[in-house]
Amino acid sequence: MPSPLRLHPDRLLPAEPGLRAIARELYAAVRELPILSPHGHVPAQLLVDDEPFRDPAALFVTPDHYVTRLLHADGVSLADLGVGRGPLTEPAARAVWRVLCERWPLFRGTPVRFWLDTELADIFGVTERPSAQNADALYDRVAERLAGADYRPRALFERFGIAFLATTDDPADDLAAHAALASDPTWTARVAPTFRPDRYLEPDRADWCKAVDHLGEVAGIETGDYAGYIAALEARRRYFVEHGAVSADHGHDDAVAEPLDARDAERIYRSAYAGQVTAAEALAFRRHMVVEMARMSCDDGLVMTLHPGSSRNHHAPSFHAYGPDTGSDIPRRTEYTTALRPLLERYGTHPGLHLVLFTLDETVWSRELAPLAGFYPSVYVGAPWWFLDAPDAITRFREAVTETAGFSRTSGFVDDTRAFCSIPARHDMARRLDAAYLARLVGEHRLDLDEALETAVDLVDGQPRRVFRL
Amino acid sequence: MPSPLRLHPDRLLPAEPGLRAIARELYAAVRELPILSPHGHVPAQLLVDDEPFRDPAALFVTPDHYVTRLLHADGVSLADLGVGRGPLTEPAARAVWRVLCERWPLFRGTPVRFWLDTELADIFGVTERPSAQNADALYDRVAERLAGADYRPRALFERFGIAFLATTDDPADDLAAHAALASDPTWTARVAPTFRPDRYLEPDRADWCKAVDHLGEVAGIETGDYAGYIAALEARRRYFVEHGAVSADHGHDDAVAEPLDARDAERIYRSAYAGQVTAAEALAFRRHMVVEMARMSCDDGLVMTLHPGSSRNHHAPSFHAYGPDTGSDIPRRTEYTTALRPLLERYGTHPGLHLVLFTLDETVWSRELAPLAGFYPSVYVGAPWWFLDAPDAITRFREAVTETAGFSRTSGFVDDTRAFCSIPARHDMARRLDAAYLARLVGEHRLDLDEALETAVDLVDGQPRRVFRL
Amino acid sequence: MPSPLRLHPDRLLPAEPGLRAIARELYAAVRELPILSPHGHVPAQLLVDDEPFRDPAALFVTPDHYVTRLLHADGVSLADLGVGRGPLTEPAARAVWRVLCERWPLFRGTPVRFWLDTELADIFGVTERPSAQNADALYDRVAERLAGADYRPRALFERFGIAFLATTDDPADDLAAHAALASDPTWTARVAPTFRPDRYLEPDRADWCKAVDHLGEVAGIETGDYAGYIAALEARRRYFVEHGAVSADHGHDDAVAEPLDARDAERIYRSAYAGQVTAAEALAFRRHMVVEMARMSCDDGLVMTLHPGSSRNHHAPSFHAYGPDTGSDIPRRTEYTTALRPLLERYGTHPGLHLVLFTLDETVWSRELAPLAGFYPSVYVGAPWWFLDAPDAITRFREAVTETAGFSRTSGFVDDTRAFCSIPARHDMARRLDAAYLARLVGEHRLDLDEALETAVDLVDGQPRRVFRL
Repeated sequence: MPSPLRLHPDRLLPAEPGLRAIARELYAAVRELPILSPHGHVPAQLLVDDEPFRDPAALFVTPDHYVTRLLHADGVSLADLGVGRGPLTEPAARAVWRVLCERWPLFRGTPVRFWLDTELADIFGVTERPSAQNADALYDRVAERLAGADYRPRALFERFGIAFLATTDDPADDLAAHAALASDPTWTARVAPTFRPDRYLEPDRADWCKAVDHLGEVAGIETGDYAGYIAALEARRRYFVEHGAVSADHGHDDAVAEPLDARDAERIYRSAYAGQVTAAEALAFRRHMVVEMARMSCDDGLVMTLHPGSSRNHHAPSFHAYGPDTGSDIPRRTEYTTALRPLLERYGTHPGLHLVLFTLDETVWSRELAPLAGFYPSVYVGAPWWFLDAPDAITRFREAVTETAGFSRTSGFVDDTRAFCSIPARHDMARRLDAAYLARLVGEHRLDLDEALETAVDLVDGQPRRVFRL
Repeated sequence: MPSPLRLHPDRLLPAEPGLRAIARELYAAVRELPILSPHGHVPAQLLVDDEPFRDPAALFVTPDHYVTRLLHADGVSLADLGVGRGPLTEPAARAVWRVLCERWPLFRGTPVRFWLDTELADIFGVTERPSAQNADALYDRVAERLAGADYRPRALFERFGIAFLATTDDPADDLAAHAALASDPTWTARVAPTFRPDRYLEPDRADWCKAVDHLGEVAGIETGDYAGYIAALEARRRYFVEHGAVSADHGHDDAVAEPLDARDAERIYRSAYAGQVTAAEALAFRRHMVVEMARMSCDDGLVMTLHPGSSRNHHAPSFHAYGPDTGSDIPRRTEYTTALRPLLERYGTHPGLHLVLFTLDETVWSRELAPLAGFYPSVYVGAPWWFLDAPDAITRFREAVTETAGFSRTSGFVDDTRAFCSIPARHDMARRLDAAYLARLVGEHRLDLDEALETAVDLVDGQPRRVFRL
Repeated sequence: MPSPLRLHPDRLLPAEPGLRAIARELYAAVRELPILSPHGHVPAQLLVDDEPFRDPAALFVTPDHYVTRLLHADGVSLADLGVGRGPLTEPAARAVWRVLCERWPLFRGTPVRFWLDTELADIFGVTERPSAQNADALYDRVAERLAGADYRPRALFERFGIAFLATTDDPADDLAAHAALASDPTWTARVAPTFRPDRYLEPDRADWCKAVDHLGEVAGIETGDYAGYIAALEARRRYFVEHGAVSADHGHDDAVAEPLDARDAERIYRSAYAGQVTAAEALAFRRHMVVEMARMSCDDGLVMTLHPGSSRNHHAPSFHAYGPDTGSDIPRRTEYTTALRPLLERYGTHPGLHLVLFTLDETVWSRELAPLAGFYPSVYVGAPWWFLDAPDAITRFREAVTETAGFSRTSGFVDDTRAFCSIPARHDMARRLDAAYLARLVGEHRLDLDEALETAVDLVDGQPRRVFRL
């Protein structure tokens, strides 16, 4: 007899009965609120096309490095998970799915397990725990559902209760998909682009010259010199703002923001444009440009989000075989206090700036991010990100940040996912955990229940609206 | 109807009923014990003058960066909080108070909230949660109380049950206020000065030459050369010891203690005295002087306390407008193991040295400080400090330190505050949290109840007496 | 009346009754399982000789830096604990034991207390908490038992239920003790050597030239050049494999693994062999050799374990007076992500490599080790080690690692002890804490009970067998 897959109504709430009762009450107040997703990686085109999802493997496994990495660590090659192979045949997709089901125990204790459980049960009505035995039957069930009209992206979007969804986009993107949604009278939710300029700010990338030329063409501004380059970036930001963007996102190696004087910036730009930039110059230029982007945010109001600290493509052979974002990005120690000082001395109290700081290094929560956000009116501590978007880590986040920065200096939850169907599960997880944390404050008489209720709702609704200016 | 302000008798104790019962018993044993405060920033002159506190804003808001920083982060300028404006008019003070009450929700989940609640309820009999609606009424109530004789500093000091209070003082201070208290037959508590030599040890400070000259004058020793400078410092330490000092406190950028040979120290001193020291020389000199101060502690018995790791005045514009200690000090990663090795190889097993190590970087608790204190008879782990003086951080402190260093290698609680009325609330918080931690050890059968009771009392009474040689 | 010493059956299990009931059930499933100890410091000769243990001080205090360090911190000299004095007379041993009993309260809240309690009660039937009053009586009781045949090493080994025990051995060791046990028909358990080549890989050690010459002799291979040195190491690894070794252990200062090109390696080897290596060359050579050892592991299958990050002999005076491993090793911040990248790019997906990463810096658990182990099929996160082998630290380990790496990427428990009698207590502690952690996952509906039961058993039995290829 297969093991049942059951979603307990109290999952993730404290086990202690007194705290659980409080947490239940808090969770009930936020459970059904619409989802605001101000940072993520679902493409707008998905909603424009509204095509059925291809198959269970493509939906749950192949493109999601959260899922593939533990399977890879268990000895399955990325190729056998369909990574980098494009659309799979039905037998190939089924084989990938079977790998996931057979190795289901690998995910015990992980948030992936929570998300997949929730997706399978809530969206697809699955009632059995995946295993080698039922893998094919589950594949058939999910595949059958995916063929139905109510499992297309738009139907699911509506069912998920998403009120705001931000995508992540290249500054040269024409945002046609966003425009199409905005002009579609049958589409009512807000889908906003996000300005992600990394590749234009790192002049030692192989494709940088080509990229800034293309950016200039799109902006209608000559980028042969530094002034033009800056003007083109400003123009593209305006274009994004006009298309509904609320934020600009940065994923550089570190958090350092260090201005150059104008002549140095111009000189390095010329070198780079001539294909002669050194690694040190390129680094200095990028760190300068982060300050410039903060300056632009003061002017145009795009919320600035920083996601530093990941060693991208740590395993070069995997990168060369399968491309980026396939699971071998590994976090490193990351410093913020000294790194951001020049930026904050200039713009830290500017009313135009909202700077949301994410981290993969949880040691900075209590030591650096909460103290920064607890003083600078521009700074917010980003929700736990990536490896830290997990129950115990989220709990540690609140415990590390709240005592110095309260709740008002945090970003609200950010799902940051490319796994469309996991969006409601991720937000639900965050809501449950905030309810659990607040319940403990109430149970230990550190907060009154009415305050906890107000805070729980505010974290889901008010806080992201204020921080991301929705 | 206004929300009530209630202090639950079990606040901060574990929610789980079995643990709470144990914690109650432990807390009851320490609740009324006298307060020993071996490090803080209340001036002795406050107790000599015994003038009424000026107004609620001056008592609770303006001088306390713990309170102002979240208000500042919420968009209130420091000027609007009265910072740097000297004594406020009644309407100005009332306006500052109103800001606090209106933005009361900012402090949810913070220790500031716990301290303010306790102070308002326990000292001033406030029974309503502050808000925009009752701000003026609460101001009137507190102001009215402050006018009464039993709200003057000496009366409150007695009411708070403070048995020992250390101030923080400049080595050139004549300690007249301490002498006045010592010779006052109506004053029975012990108020001890603390030797805080930072500015004399950092020769690239703008006022350093003037300062060491002044120190020489006060000591009656010529400080034109290094030998005189050392002799003057030694003389002033003796003066402090004669006036009851028990410790010398250091708040440098880092924890590095690295001796120079005598000729290098003399050479740098000469350069510095001639106004020609480089930044590198000044740094080397300070790190050398930390070793010298340890040597002096071996001789004169002043407990040495280190408080490194804060980027002081991170936001230069705020510093220039409002001065130091106004909320923009931000912690940084801090290293102790390698930094202190030269000092500990010399003096680490010297019976004269007590070295109390505080940190704003909680990662060192389990990794560096507990292992150091668990071997070196001179080393103690300082209580959670500043941003870490908060319920969950204090709990993490015990969890990180005890397993390697037990209880005997920790300092006992240190309030480190300039907010006089918060002293009992801060000590009460620490006592409740130690009771909660010990209760868990008992509840998990890791400690017997009689041992936990003995430990709880010892942490409040015996441990600070031994560590600070009271 | 003396205080009783009682081992509560539910010790270390959660206090909350619902969780405790679950934890009890989980613990019951693993409580009696045989002990697999794949890394430790008990010498095989102990089991060959099977002599009675000398006295209670030699068994519990003198050789165990876990025990001596807090006594030292409390002001007892290492000499007074018998350290470095060889076998003690009966009065001297008794005096050492008395120090332990008198200062018993020092160990409150530490794992040492848990281990000693368990050993005294479970092995020696002690029923009173040690104190100054009963020190002599307890000494007599333990000493009397030690004289009995059932307290000899082999009898205890059997009583402890140890199925596999790894020792730690010099690559030049002839492994005669292991051979003797293997050929002894009355001995059935598996006692495996471990290849520990540190001193042969660090060419600036004073005895390095002599050591590699000796290694060459033992291997029958000339080590006058680099090729011979490599061949000798490979030969000795084969010898260890033939004698049952399953792993090679490394305890260098840092985790850096950085290959040199062959000519540089040869050149440095020549310099070193001529006694002229610089510190920088020696460091580069050792970091190169770590990569070489990984290469050899791919070939011969020895599991590679890394234990970096300890400042050995931090207090040089103690080292000079008492030798190494006497309590003054202090952890430092340790980096793995960048350090291991070159090694992992070469061998990280090689099926021959198992690389188990231990740390004294718990910040790397969530930030570096779990992400590495969650991608690389070769990498496992080592169990909490040394200062972190303690109840709350072990709990933090599971909380930090599981959400990214699950359970399958962790090593299983490793006791790493030279205190023979503490082995069962240490494994019991780990089993209880894993039961407690899993109980919380079940209680919060993050895992089903059947899964938790399977996982609990697997962590004790299957996981170490797979990771260490037992």
